[in-house]
Amino acid sequence: MVQYPTTIDRTFAALADPTRRAVLERLSNGSATITELTEPFGMTLTGMKKHIRLLEDANLVTTEKIGRVRNCRLVPYAFEGINTWLRRLDRFAEVVERTKGAP
Amino acid sequence: MVQYPTTIDRTFAALADPTRRAVLERLSNGSATITELTEPFGMTLTGMKKHIRLLEDANLVTTEKIGRVRNCRLVPYAFEGINTWLRRLDRFAEVVERTKGAP
Repeated sequence: MVQYPTTIDRTFAALADPTRRAVLERLSNGSATITELTEPFGMTLTGMKKHIRLLEDANLVTTEKIGRVRNCRLVPYAFEGINTWLRRLDRFAEVVERTKGAP
Repeated sequence: MVQYPTTIDRTFAALADPTRRAVLERLSNGSATITELTEPFGMTLTGMKKHIRLLEDANLVTTEKIGRVRNCRLVPYAFEGINTWLRRLDRFAEVVERTKGAP
């Protein structure tokens, strides 16, 4: 059976790269063009565009072409899905820890 | 420059797979042997061992050999690192949303 990646799969995969996490940190301070994002990383425009596309596929970043530049911004509540999953897991694990050794 | 994956890289990469997330959900209810984990997934023991090794490398699961079986359990506070990162990013993004349109 072939399994296609879900949004949550793509979100976690997108976050596994330090450059993409740094881009998200930068965008959490406000929107930026792809050129502005490229400079601090000493990366080619082509390399950065690939990272941005992966972040778009993961529904973490949205881009908009304004004239000749492409503006990037963070999707609001982008981490809601994975935060919900992480919280549920933490809650279960806490209960297990608390009841450990209980009769 | 070669960049080696950090723990947080490995954690996010480990979470990008639905089988590994399901294993973590199962372990959040208590420890289990690799054989017990294999059954519900219709997976080979070899396949499951690979997933478990990746979860160990990401510091999400710890295993212990007891007699002839290997017992797996969730590492306490395993998601602390990525939760901290996600919370920081959310906080920044909230400030940006709040101050949007402000003079």
